[in-house]
Amino acid sequence: MHVETEPTEQLQRAAHAARAASQVLARTDTGHRNGGLAAMAAALRAQAPQILAANAADLGDCTGPAAFRDRLTLNEARIEAMAKGLEDVAALPDPLGRVLADWTRPNGLRIQRIAAPIGVIGMIYESRPNVGADAAGLCLKSGNAVILRGGAESTRSAHAINAALVTGLRSVDLPEASVQVAPTADRSFVGAMLAGAGLLDLIVPRGGKSLVERVRREARVPVLAHAEGLCHTYIHAAANPDMARRIVLNAKMRRTGICGATETLLIDRTVAPSLLPAIVADLRALGCDFRADAAARDIVPDLLAASDADFDTEWLDAILSVAVVDGVDAALAHITRHGSEHTDAIVTEDAVAAEYFLTNLDSAVGLWNASTQFCDGGEFGFGAEIGIATGRIHARGPVGVEQLTTYRYVVRGTGQVRP
Amino acid sequence: MHVETEPTEQLQRAAHAARAASQVLARTDTGHRNGGLAAMAAALRAQAPQILAANAADLGDCTGPAAFRDRLTLNEARIEAMAKGLEDVAALPDPLGRVLADWTRPNGLRIQRIAAPIGVIGMIYESRPNVGADAAGLCLKSGNAVILRGGAESTRSAHAINAALVTGLRSVDLPEASVQVAPTADRSFVGAMLAGAGLLDLIVPRGGKSLVERVRREARVPVLAHAEGLCHTYIHAAANPDMARRIVLNAKMRRTGICGATETLLIDRTVAPSLLPAIVADLRALGCDFRADAAARDIVPDLLAASDADFDTEWLDAILSVAVVDGVDAALAHITRHGSEHTDAIVTEDAVAAEYFLTNLDSAVGLWNASTQFCDGGEFGFGAEIGIATGRIHARGPVGVEQLTTYRYVVRGTGQVRP
Repeated sequence: MHVETEPTEQLQRAAHAARAASQVLARTDTGHRNGGLAAMAAALRAQAPQILAANAADLGDCTGPAAFRDRLTLNEARIEAMAKGLEDVAALPDPLGRVLADWTRPNGLRIQRIAAPIGVIGMIYESRPNVGADAAGLCLKSGNAVILRGGAESTRSAHAINAALVTGLRSVDLPEASVQVAPTADRSFVGAMLAGAGLLDLIVPRGGKSLVERVRREARVPVLAHAEGLCHTYIHAAANPDMARRIVLNAKMRRTGICGATETLLIDRTVAPSLLPAIVADLRALGCDFRADAAARDIVPDLLAASDADFDTEWLDAILSVAVVDGVDAALAHITRHGSEHTDAIVTEDAVAAEYFLTNLDSAVGLWNASTQFCDGGEFGFGAEIGIATGRIHARGPVGVEQLTTYRYVVRGTGQVRP
Repeated sequence: MHVETEPTEQLQRAAHAARAASQVLARTDTGHRNGGLAAMAAALRAQAPQILAANAADLGDCTGPAAFRDRLTLNEARIEAMAKGLEDVAALPDPLGRVLADWTRPNGLRIQRIAAPIGVIGMIYESRPNVGADAAGLCLKSGNAVILRGGAESTRSAHAINAALVTGLRSVDLPEASVQVAPTADRSFVGAMLAGAGLLDLIVPRGGKSLVERVRREARVPVLAHAEGLCHTYIHAAANPDMARRIVLNAKMRRTGICGATETLLIDRTVAPSLLPAIVADLRALGCDFRADAAARDIVPDLLAASDADFDTEWLDAILSVAVVDGVDAALAHITRHGSEHTDAIVTEDAVAAEYFLTNLDSAVGLWNASTQFCDGGEFGFGAEIGIATGRIHARGPVGVEQLTTYRYVVRGTGQVRP
């Protein structure tokens, strides 16, 4: 029992402190919160030696593969990027207090819908320590307190970063409990967070599919996340061939490991014979492999055959599934069947076809003549993102400071009573 | 096993049909959906005899108390009100396709955030059969399919109403599965709905606190609801005394059983001696009882003493808790400690005090110089409401057709690739 309850009690203590902090934050003005962000950035720079020493200790114990070690690794440039990120968030418009709607009823009641903080947010992430600083900045900007639970392997890095962030908060007289790191690396603390209805208002998990799926399955608290980004690029019959080649190359190969990378190419039957060989050549030159349906293999015979399961696979690697389709409806049907409601693009010079695709696509982000890799908070102009959401409630697509707000109604009367 | 799995399979069948219907609805224009609402209203009127016969059969088996029987009872007037409600919803602006934001990035990408249907909604309610028709109308207007699970006592009424709604849908060639009634009165169907992640996108429970708390506890699907409305009216030192008396009388006594009814009167110490006796007299004349703190009983000695738990009680009856407070911050502190983040009001002629209250109150709805009973979708101008939400995600306050939408991004480019 002791092992079970202790993380719960630790979460309760952290969450109660976070709740009190959030109530203070909700009353601060944007200048005060921006001052906090600037002070946090300055403290990250000033405490870089301690952060690097903590990170070196984490790395010393790390037995993971090279890619994992790379994500865990901090250096001067990465600390500077964290600090700069906080300053970028400080420069964003205030997401709080925005009047989202404003109308007057026939009885004279004036009703305003006003953006307000959500409250206490739980962030669960994996190895990259900078995710904690980014999340802390976005939450502070939006008036929310946050409890950060990073991967156990990065515990010392996370605490060292948090010490700097708290130094910044303290220096401008903002509550230290606005940003907290999980007090224990015990895995059951994650379970306590997921069970934390009433303690946490929202959980943002950021990491691999298994983490996100566990959070979605077990959470008793609302979740904003995406489990996978199975993104499609559809080359329509009326595509500009050169543009199509440039976009597919970028959408697949710019970075293969991000959720906005295209995993499946859908190519219209009418242009596949002329265009697919060139696209295959472009991508092969960068080391890409293919899983293609029969019609695509009729055109480029040495492509590997795709199984149906391949079209349900988020490769996160230099592999592209390829299917030949007959028109926009067939492309949309493929996306509905295999997609993840994340990000999908059409390439075409035919505006009617493009608008039909964009209107009938049911994904968080639909693009026309642009790379799917633009699904990103920074590219959307949000300054940063705490994650990307593919659920259907509250927010879809990149989650920035606006999406970390809720709203409340303010109703002003002159003595009205309800008939 | 059979008993366990069958409702799950029934839900799967209903939800898959609903998903297909929702995909059709998402592509309809507002004229088509409004035509469906008009046809549903006409069919309700035309099939009133069958609905009343089904309702009589439900009532014949009903052994509940009088208030329960009243909620279950349909008559010509209530059927007409259902039909009129659908027509009112048809008259609302289209909630879909609204451009919620629109900007262009320095690289030329134009980004629009556009309102879109949520998808498949599960509605769980108790005895009043009209709730099903109201929910169906709001969901159809907003392009969502809905699965209705009313109380077991109203099963025949619900099926008869649904038959009329489906007649209307069919007559305008909208999918019949847009509005479905739970295929079984088995209680485990509710359990299947709550476990229906991936099948349902949102659950709206509407009913007593125990129903809503069960749904919140067990649901694996996002929930919009309020478990209770513990609403406060605070009479500030600078209140207009006559206005204060009118507002408190209305806020408590207009209807005592609705969630927007005031349950607790907070009265400023400076005006309590002059104003509380008159308020007590006003309310007593309508049969109201009181639970008062010591300071209030010093002023009106024959009030019953309040326990601390009384201030945590949603009476839903002609009972008013009364506490004397010292200023706006004390009122806000009382509301934070005892309230339910639903609806709270201040009565004052002091605009600075009012704005301070409205800014620092963290409830879904804050009112100045108006009755808390205005927290209602109809009174907000939404035409109707599917419920009132006190959570912190997606929507707060009355949930109408706008709140039954999500959004998607449409990004139009000219060949941009990400650097």
